[in-house]
Amino acid sequence: LASRLQGIPATIFSEMSALAARTGSVNLGQGFPDVDGPPSVIARAVEALEHGQNQYAPGPGVPALRQAIARHQRRNYGLELDPDTEVVVTTGCTEGIAAALLGLVDPGDEVVVLEPYYDSYVAMIQMAGGVRRPVTLRAPDFRLDADELRAAVSERTRLILLNSPHNPTGTVLTPEELAVVADVATEHDLVVVTDEVYEHLTFTGHRHVPLATLPGMAERTLTLSSAGKSYSFTGWKVGWATGPAHLVGAVLAAKQWLTFTSGSPLQPAVALALDEEPDWPRQLAAGLEERRDLLCAGLAEAGLGVRVPEGTYFVNTDVSALGWEDGRAFCTALPERAGVVAIPTQVFYDDPSAPGAGRHLVRWAFCKEPAMIEEGLRRLKGAD
Amino acid sequence: LASRLQGIPATIFSEMSALAARTGSVNLGQGFPDVDGPPSVIARAVEALEHGQNQYAPGPGVPALRQAIARHQRRNYGLELDPDTEVVVTTGCTEGIAAALLGLVDPGDEVVVLEPYYDSYVAMIQMAGGVRRPVTLRAPDFRLDADELRAAVSERTRLILLNSPHNPTGTVLTPEELAVVADVATEHDLVVVTDEVYEHLTFTGHRHVPLATLPGMAERTLTLSSAGKSYSFTGWKVGWATGPAHLVGAVLAAKQWLTFTSGSPLQPAVALALDEEPDWPRQLAAGLEERRDLLCAGLAEAGLGVRVPEGTYFVNTDVSALGWEDGRAFCTALPERAGVVAIPTQVFYDDPSAPGAGRHLVRWAFCKEPAMIEEGLRRLKGAD
Ligand SMILES: CSCCC(=O)C(=O)O
Ligand SMILES: CSCCC(=O)C(=O)O
Repeated sequence: LASRLQGIPATIFSEMSALAARTGSVNLGQGFPDVDGPPSVIARAVEALEHGQNQYAPGPGVPALRQAIARHQRRNYGLELDPDTEVVVTTGCTEGIAAALLGLVDPGDEVVVLEPYYDSYVAMIQMAGGVRRPVTLRAPDFRLDADELRAAVSERTRLILLNSPHNPTGTVLTPEELAVVADVATEHDLVVVTDEVYEHLTFTGHRHVPLATLPGMAERTLTLSSAGKSYSFTGWKVGWATGPAHLVGAVLAAKQWLTFTSGSPLQPAVALALDEEPDWPRQLAAGLEERRDLLCAGLAEAGLGVRVPEGTYFVNTDVSALGWEDGRAFCTALPERAGVVAIPTQVFYDDPSAPGAGRHLVRWAFCKEPAMIEEGLRRLKGAD
Repeated sequence: LASRLQGIPATIFSEMSALAARTGSVNLGQGFPDVDGPPSVIARAVEALEHGQNQYAPGPGVPALRQAIARHQRRNYGLELDPDTEVVVTTGCTEGIAAALLGLVDPGDEVVVLEPYYDSYVAMIQMAGGVRRPVTLRAPDFRLDADELRAAVSERTRLILLNSPHNPTGTVLTPEELAVVADVATEHDLVVVTDEVYEHLTFTGHRHVPLATLPGMAERTLTLSSAGKSYSFTGWKVGWATGPAHLVGAVLAAKQWLTFTSGSPLQPAVALALDEEPDWPRQLAAGLEERRDLLCAGLAEAGLGVRVPEGTYFVNTDVSALGWEDGRAFCTALPERAGVVAIPTQVFYDDPSAPGAGRHLVRWAFCKEPAMIEEGLRRLKGAD
């Protein structure tokens, strides 16, 4: 194995979904919905399959999709983008992250990243030879501390890797928190790569503000998103990166060698989703909010300390309330004890035992049908 | 732009397909067919879309596809593979190449590679920090020279990156040539990564022999292929890597962070293709052979020196016969002169002016309907 990959464990999501399948557990681990997105979007994919959209898409993505992404950014956020130079289609947000880091980070460059972090961030920073500088959203509130962010930036900082709505904590950064990021970025002339894949999945009282909409930020922000989460087609892996041409160009420069292109018959369907199902993601969010409440209430009843999330698919709980200090041990025992799978949040920290970090945290997904969530809760409550 | 990408131009295929679209040219450049693969395979993809195979596939690929790939290797080549550890699904062969190089090559490692080389090889060797050691298949015969291969191997060689049937030359390595590769690899205890994406696309008198079937090679060969070329669905980007668990594991270790997974609804359709349309690729090859002959005859009539290919989608011609010393200049002028796009083979060489290299070569694709090939030829003959 090449040294760039050494010491990086297999993604927790593969591990835990395989465990769920093996043990017949209710899978509240990996974040994917159990109900697919709009039938009109599936119908468009079928049409593309049956009417000859099965050969290579252009490397940057099919023009109709790039145009629809540009319209989506204008309609939702007032952002103006040139679909030919400021939009690139990626194989999900995962490829956007990989290509951005390979395209922008040189060995020794520092990357400031919110902790707890999505596991591909850490892996790709290492693969790019970067050095991560985590800024911890501290439990139990998971807010961004302006001083810690400032302290993480150095002469060697190449970019800030942001994520809001934030996985795994469920935090939606406030306009004030985002303003701090913008201040730091402009002051130090930094690029920000921001994973906004849960952009539409926010709950009452919380609203997603794209970092690129803040003053001075459009020209230095590379925004990543995907149809997987907004339209409940996680397996399609159709995502995108938007921003100034030099940053989008860096993504394309790397991505053309990673996959060249992907999902030709799915791309026109995502274009249709963005144009003709503009309200679908907010309806999904409304349904998710009910399921969030169902899961949070049940987890609290089961004796867990719950932090109600502001967005995303995920809720974190403190399992020390049940006498478990180690969330990893809790999650490893859970399939056997209860027939349920959840994610140990501690794997997303450099030092899960640090103050405010997450050794005792466990993440549960609520992007599942209410009956499935109820079954999971029933099993939890019946566990020994 | 990160230094790992500096000096690497955009892929020639994007450049040339964009040129074809802009100039309304007949596109005999990028290799993709103009007729899709089997209707039964499309029908299976439709079923998957309509019946809930739209969420994340497992990272290594859906089990049904991994099993079908293992059966394909057994049926065609007598190779026995464990679908759980010796097969991984990738986003086309491109991702297989990227993941293999990122997973196996450390900075400073040497990679022995056939020249002319597919452009992603060069880019990914550079991105992995590797040093390429080209072994030239010299024009006009494009055969592998055993001494040159031996001379390219050093103490620093990490792996040999093979490709047969070979793009862009159309050479199918003979059992004797493959035996030389096997000798060198076993003697120096080297891994071979072999791109066999045109495995079924060989013509009368030439047969593809997978390197992994040679004595001592199964345990050191990582074989890459894809449904794109064998089943005429280049836009689906469903490929695979097969081989011993430690090499497949290295691909998976990298790939999980590049895309995680892709094409959930397309994967079961490819499984069906492999199992239920086993003869389709050979029929495609038979049709391709006719179109090869059509194109070769027409190019010869147009005054070009033609090397009849043994496999792949591509024929190379010597344009110096027409007074053009520089194939790049020829290809740049061609859309304007004739309304045809072709690929300057010279971009696939370190030094296209070296003896036996390809400054004067131009590559033409014949994976197009006869009417399209005829139209291309008509335009060529009518050019000034
Ligand atoms: C790419 S697999 C993980 C899905 C997800 O976003 C999560 O569970 O956090
Ligand atoms: C990935 S685009 C190139 C298609 C192809 O294999 C070729 O034209 O050589």
